[in-house]
Amino acid sequence: MLTHINEQGRAKMVDVSEKKETIRVARALAKVLMKESTLKRIKEGGIKKGDVLSVAQVAGIMAAKNTANSIPMCHPIMLSAVNINYQYLENGIKIIAEVKCAGKTGVEMEALTAVSITGLTIYDMCKAIDKEMIITDICLLEKSGGKSGHFRRKQSER
Amino acid sequence: MLTHINEQGRAKMVDVSEKKETIRVARALAKVLMKESTLKRIKEGGIKKGDVLSVAQVAGIMAAKNTANSIPMCHPIMLSAVNINYQYLENGIKIIAEVKCAGKTGVEMEALTAVSITGLTIYDMCKAIDKEMIITDICLLEKSGGKSGHFRRKQSER
Amino acid sequence: MLTHINEQGRAKMVDVSEKKETIRVARALAKVLMKESTLKRIKEGGIKKGDVLSVAQVAGIMAAKNTANSIPMCHPIMLSAVNINYQYLENGIKIIAEVKCAGKTGVEMEALTAVSITGLTIYDMCKAIDKEMIITDICLLEKSGGKSGHFRRKQSER
Amino acid sequence: MLTHINEQGRAKMVDVSEKKETIRVARALAKVLMKESTLKRIKEGGIKKGDVLSVAQVAGIMAAKNTANSIPMCHPIMLSAVNINYQYLENGIKIIAEVKCAGKTGVEMEALTAVSITGLTIYDMCKAIDKEMIITDICLLEKSGGKSGHFRRKQSER
Amino acid sequence: MLTHINEQGRAKMVDVSEKKETIRVARALAKVLMKESTLKRIKEGGIKKGDVLSVAQVAGIMAAKNTANSIPMCHPIMLSAVNINYQYLENGIKIIAEVKCAGKTGVEMEALTAVSITGLTIYDMCKAIDKEMIITDICLLEKSGGKSGHFRRKQSER
Amino acid sequence: MLTHINEQGRAKMVDVSEKKETIRVARALAKVLMKESTLKRIKEGGIKKGDVLSVAQVAGIMAAKNTANSIPMCHPIMLSAVNINYQYLENGIKIIAEVKCAGKTGVEMEALTAVSITGLTIYDMCKAIDKEMIITDICLLEKSGGKSGHFRRKQSER
Repeated sequence: MLTHINEQGRAKMVDVSEKKETIRVARALAKVLMKESTLKRIKEGGIKKGDVLSVAQVAGIMAAKNTANSIPMCHPIMLSAVNINYQYLENGIKIIAEVKCAGKTGVEMEALTAVSITGLTIYDMCKAIDKEMIITDICLLEKSGGKSGHFRRKQSER
Repeated sequence: MLTHINEQGRAKMVDVSEKKETIRVARALAKVLMKESTLKRIKEGGIKKGDVLSVAQVAGIMAAKNTANSIPMCHPIMLSAVNINYQYLENGIKIIAEVKCAGKTGVEMEALTAVSITGLTIYDMCKAIDKEMIITDICLLEKSGGKSGHFRRKQSER
Repeated sequence: MLTHINEQGRAKMVDVSEKKETIRVARALAKVLMKESTLKRIKEGGIKKGDVLSVAQVAGIMAAKNTANSIPMCHPIMLSAVNINYQYLENGIKIIAEVKCAGKTGVEMEALTAVSITGLTIYDMCKAIDKEMIITDICLLEKSGGKSGHFRRKQSER
Repeated sequence: MLTHINEQGRAKMVDVSEKKETIRVARALAKVLMKESTLKRIKEGGIKKGDVLSVAQVAGIMAAKNTANSIPMCHPIMLSAVNINYQYLENGIKIIAEVKCAGKTGVEMEALTAVSITGLTIYDMCKAIDKEMIITDICLLEKSGGKSGHFRRKQSER
Repeated sequence: MLTHINEQGRAKMVDVSEKKETIRVARALAKVLMKESTLKRIKEGGIKKGDVLSVAQVAGIMAAKNTANSIPMCHPIMLSAVNINYQYLENGIKIIAEVKCAGKTGVEMEALTAVSITGLTIYDMCKAIDKEMIITDICLLEKSGGKSGHFRRKQSER
Repeated sequence: MLTHINEQGRAKMVDVSEKKETIRVARALAKVLMKESTLKRIKEGGIKKGDVLSVAQVAGIMAAKNTANSIPMCHPIMLSAVNINYQYLENGIKIIAEVKCAGKTGVEMEALTAVSITGLTIYDMCKAIDKEMIITDICLLEKSGGKSGHFRRKQSER
């Protein structure tokens, strides 16, 4: 059932009033694929103080907190932790965000929004040298703490 | 050159004061891959009034306007048009956003942000029935109006 | 007593720290009055996919969540449900919003903001064909869950 | 024609790229009807420093600037002036907002949003003593500067 | 230890999931120093209805609520009270904000943000007559409710 | 004259419709004073990738763009450049922001907001080890491009 549909067939924000407050965690993934030379530039920048990945990480954390203002049917949630990590791939960068809250609904949208905006910020800061970058494989890796039980993506970490 | 880096090696918002105001257009793409049954539900909902794709489209348009508050080094831009269209794929939905402005900088980040948030909203509204959806292939299809000339992605529309 | 006034005679955000968390509900109403031909157009659009009322509803739900950023002395509240419904009148549209939270303060401002922004969005999308529309009768229908007891507007649903 | 509908029957932000930049002005009205005793309290407060109407006016001005983030299909506009005035009625308060810009689209939504949020803020600050207030007669009084010519509401100032 | 640094040496939002919800209070201070004539004008305005200090106070309260969107690593918090008071100095104005919440983290950033934005708003409204104003001495006066105990600035109220 | 006051003695957003679009620049300053050990920690962090000053700088740039949503009577402005630099002092950090636009009003509030939020973010990230930090000397250093001519603070750079 698409739970976000109301009695008139339009969208609503689902009622979670009676759900229990539990510790909820979600981890999401995105990849930014790019030219070898672009990746090299990011890595070099990473040695200096003002690197691309630091800026992107700040953007991702702020986006996670702002999710309920971006995704219309998302419930406002008071996040209790956001952590974003990177791994270098041969042809790009893997972004992993872990988000936590003590609340009534899951935080998968917050984790997914975090990795998406982190990826978009990397794109923005490198687009002068590489317009062909692709942000891809945005998906939920793991989710726990809700009534629906522990979800773990099968080919985890893809 | 990573133009967003200042004299202390940290991030800055690049100076575009002297750039010309021209009509700038950008088109971006994202795909949301999902189970067949999920796609079927979205299509059925599409016949009714409150469908998933309408909500996602509103989210994408609002996100495009809000890009400079999400992506740290993006210039504020007064968008003059945003249009989002969908195509059904066998295993998901293709999202295409076209964004326009009369301004001093390109609008590719606005188009990319629009398709990303549109995709995330589709995810949000269907996640109760499909947690394994993937948002993928976020890329710039076309961009015109700036000094750097007309960009068109090679394997266009992938 | 106007509770929002501080010891210097200026506005403050009232202290609710010691209030109990209870389930709070509020329902509010607005009407948009319009020309018969405008109403006809909205109804026709309602048969298609991208109707005016869907967009207005998304706007109303997002506005409800954002109330504490619009109304200066409103407390931030984590809404647990927002639902907006419409009824066609002879000369316009009746909007009813129901908002819920488990929190320390009532949600009447959230419900009133929801119906107001829903009405303004209907105005925006139809203003090309009808500039004389009026948004009217914005009022609180019902409120429960607080210390002040159950409020129900006398000529309910007007 | 409902100009906000795209080729797929869904909402879009209309293309104004080619419209001329002109000085555009809009004036809108709202009324807040209330108990005599509530009105008396507001007037008394008005003599002191921290009155309800000052707070409501700040809220209305900020809301006008934020309109494109509240009303989904509104174009972002750089307002060049916002002014809100009040008149006491026998049973309430009349709010009039005048908004100006030098831009490509009209500012009626900004003026209408300003009076609505001003009214909602008055409601918020007085709701402890009067839950039956009604915000009513929100309408456009006058609009000039666009291609569609000078609009002036017939029973002006109602 | 700089708690905001993650395992990769970059910023994160610290995990407070397991912290207890307690009543937390913070008081912060800022001063705006100005020419005698500017101060005189503010005081005179204070007798009338629309004074500078009322507007600044509204701005400070709204900024307190919005802190987690301004300060990247701040946790979202549902403030339960914000109160801003002024004292006239010989050469300016002292601003004191008191902020409260029932939550898992302290509210010192909210109090500090409130006094800063209040001061900036005073600057904005007087800058036509005095560009040399200085906002100074922004500091935390007192903080209670957390695990780290009661903090009180030594030369309190400076 | 306090230009922000309207005919009813309340605040308004001043009319700049008829002002000319020129290139406007403003530079502002803030200092964050701290314990020697805190400064040492920031400097050490500065060698690593995720340093405090990078995060603070991103916050300052985003705050500059968002000024019109924080300071009630500020006009929305499309900033064309923001650059923030730091200098180490013996007992703290000096923050200098330079902001530019091609527009109808000055950008001093944007520069002042940038240094304030940058300072507050430094405070936030170091408050676990130093609660006695002071943000001070927030002032306008220089401003050019408007009708009122070139302003340069006398004891420049203090």
